[in-house]
Amino acid sequence: MRILIAGIDGYLGWPLALHLAARGHDVAGIDSFQRRAWVAETGSQSATPIRSMNERLAAFEDRFGRRLKFYDGNLCDYDTVVRMLCEFEPDTVVHLGEMPSAPYSMVDVHHAVFTHTNNLTGTLHLLYGLRDYCPQAHLVKLGTMGEYGTPNIDIPEGFFEVEFRGRKERLPFPCQPPSMYHLTKVHDSANIRFACRVWGLKSTDIMQGVVFGTRVDAMGQGPDWDQRLCTRFDFDQSFGTAINRFCAQALIGMPLTPYGKGGQKRGFLALRDSIQCFTLAIENPPQTEGAYRVFNQFADTYTISDLAETVARVGRQMGLAPTIQHLENPRREAEEHYYNPDNAGLLALGYKPTHDIATEIALTLADLAPHAERIRFARDAVQPDIRWDGTRRASRSVAQADRPKVPRRPASVGALALRPVLNEKP
Amino acid sequence: MRILIAGIDGYLGWPLALHLAARGHDVAGIDSFQRRAWVAETGSQSATPIRSMNERLAAFEDRFGRRLKFYDGNLCDYDTVVRMLCEFEPDTVVHLGEMPSAPYSMVDVHHAVFTHTNNLTGTLHLLYGLRDYCPQAHLVKLGTMGEYGTPNIDIPEGFFEVEFRGRKERLPFPCQPPSMYHLTKVHDSANIRFACRVWGLKSTDIMQGVVFGTRVDAMGQGPDWDQRLCTRFDFDQSFGTAINRFCAQALIGMPLTPYGKGGQKRGFLALRDSIQCFTLAIENPPQTEGAYRVFNQFADTYTISDLAETVARVGRQMGLAPTIQHLENPRREAEEHYYNPDNAGLLALGYKPTHDIATEIALTLADLAPHAERIRFARDAVQPDIRWDGTRRASRSVAQADRPKVPRRPASVGALALRPVLNEKP
Repeated sequence: MRILIAGIDGYLGWPLALHLAARGHDVAGIDSFQRRAWVAETGSQSATPIRSMNERLAAFEDRFGRRLKFYDGNLCDYDTVVRMLCEFEPDTVVHLGEMPSAPYSMVDVHHAVFTHTNNLTGTLHLLYGLRDYCPQAHLVKLGTMGEYGTPNIDIPEGFFEVEFRGRKERLPFPCQPPSMYHLTKVHDSANIRFACRVWGLKSTDIMQGVVFGTRVDAMGQGPDWDQRLCTRFDFDQSFGTAINRFCAQALIGMPLTPYGKGGQKRGFLALRDSIQCFTLAIENPPQTEGAYRVFNQFADTYTISDLAETVARVGRQMGLAPTIQHLENPRREAEEHYYNPDNAGLLALGYKPTHDIATEIALTLADLAPHAERIRFARDAVQPDIRWDGTRRASRSVAQADRPKVPRRPASVGALALRPVLNEKP
Repeated sequence: MRILIAGIDGYLGWPLALHLAARGHDVAGIDSFQRRAWVAETGSQSATPIRSMNERLAAFEDRFGRRLKFYDGNLCDYDTVVRMLCEFEPDTVVHLGEMPSAPYSMVDVHHAVFTHTNNLTGTLHLLYGLRDYCPQAHLVKLGTMGEYGTPNIDIPEGFFEVEFRGRKERLPFPCQPPSMYHLTKVHDSANIRFACRVWGLKSTDIMQGVVFGTRVDAMGQGPDWDQRLCTRFDFDQSFGTAINRFCAQALIGMPLTPYGKGGQKRGFLALRDSIQCFTLAIENPPQTEGAYRVFNQFADTYTISDLAETVARVGRQMGLAPTIQHLENPRREAEEHYYNPDNAGLLALGYKPTHDIATEIALTLADLAPHAERIRFARDAVQPDIRWDGTRRASRSVAQADRPKVPRRPASVGALALRPVLNEKP
């Protein structure tokens, strides 16, 4: 298959390109390198020393004996989208090219508007480009399990049948997203559903859980491991997700920091499983014109507290001495709730989780160990201070949280550019 | 009350300002005059000879003996939003300041992206401005009944209680909007719901039916009628809505043109009723912090064919000779469907439809009669050619619709500016 990956420089995009190339697919990609800039803006960097795209492309060619067609560009430029679709003529477009962080979207009004404009425009450009130049292609879009929120009923895969006042209807499942970022994903999903229904496009909308880990087999194993092929690994408050952040903290002797009670339950899956699932969706496209298919993509659900305990336990087995310190929750979210999402779609296509979670965490800690100094360098960026109420204040440990509150500081007027993050200590 | 109207130069904004002023409220407003430009872009103009804002403001002062504070600006500029909120300190913000046309949003990719960027950014700026500078104010936001689509079950006001696999939950009603424009309103609603839940803002989200007519009493009646206070009246394919378009067509001897079978059922209400309903929502704000309230705002539901018949009948009574000609439907929509929306909320606040629909149509035709030449001038702009499949071709009468199809013409590459509409005749 000819597969175009938008966001190919990202945490998922790069290993997906390697995995698909290893399976014989013809891969192209586009990236604007904004993820690198956003992480720098938070005062952080990838724990793994990712290479420039030119080095990545050279390493790709060394391994696979052929070139990856790379477009250095932005989905928000429609000309670029059209040129790419017309030149590469993909069978599948995998859209991972969005701003993916809830805290980053909650920094201030300008970050919220940027996240909306960037994510919605990119997706609209792809939908129109596919409609007019590539209507047979299958769009695989990265959404998030966060689109659903945490309703007090089971979460189906995208749609459910309801009875209301004696009549029945199959409807999109109502979403209650918990951040500006998650809202943009909900908006994208509605736009894609419309494009499938009205224009006959084919799409798989992936509601993905939280991904963790460092590896896919296509990076090479043992003596065959090519460090130039490694993917990024973020651990800052904005782009680092729970397990990855805990692993980074464990490695440099910082306490692992669940937010609030830690009873927040989410779906999780390893990086290699995410790539496995994307590949299943890509290689098994929907067959009917206008099909809009939703997969909930995760291996299992865990509470944040459970995950902190698991990382601490695995860390101790590896000679580390992790502690756990609950922080005031900077977000507005339920800290204890019902959570029971379906994930039958990908299991039916053959998805099998590769390792148990403790094994994958051990592999992750081992891969990160040589880079502890890179994590230590940006350790201040791990501490959360982007609060859902619009203020900027470092979360204290829950034991300290009854101190008097710092006065609220609204976003300053007229600051129209995205500004670097300044960590304010109370 | 101190009431700020965003979109005060528009069809609803201007009469709402007059009505609220007549009731003694202190009114301010903002507009960027884009509606005038969009209608010109479609090759049309308001049937009523609306005045410049400076003339409008002078007429306002003549009638009410006080000034209306007007901001010439755009909600997409956050500085303007903040300055306005801090200066005027509104108790209520009525947000009518969006691009309101489904066909306009469906012209091409650039119009779709513009509609998204314009509508979502303006609403986000208001939400953040309210959060940081005016958190007690009540946001009355204009949504549309079109957000819901036409599900095969009753449509509640925003939320419904569902049972799913033995558990119950109150959830936002799932939306299936029929155009890019309607999608932006759905996105806005989700963003406002979030702002209320997380930041404690108070909002009423008005799901309004289709508005028709020319008048509110505050423009003056009989000898007291001040033509300088009239509101705009659009009849082109993009900004003219069903009844208004039919009235304009009847007046200049064009056939009235329902799309497709004409069995599309929608909620409708007269302009004076829309203003009555807004006033009820404004003067009866929700009392609890974080309240997000939805009103479905319409008097009754009708099919498009029924409305064409009614306009034709009223027109004949007034000496016109209207005919009806069904056109190929340029949209993708169900032309026969179940439709049963609630509207109990506003009725409970005291909403009483003023006239029966035939009376209001007769008043509208009488008000328009002196302006027939202005309608005739732009008669080409009435004919629909913006098609939901992305092509641009004038709809033929349904009897002719089995002719061979014109080849599809995709939106041209690289046309990044919004271009004037060229009506192509087949």
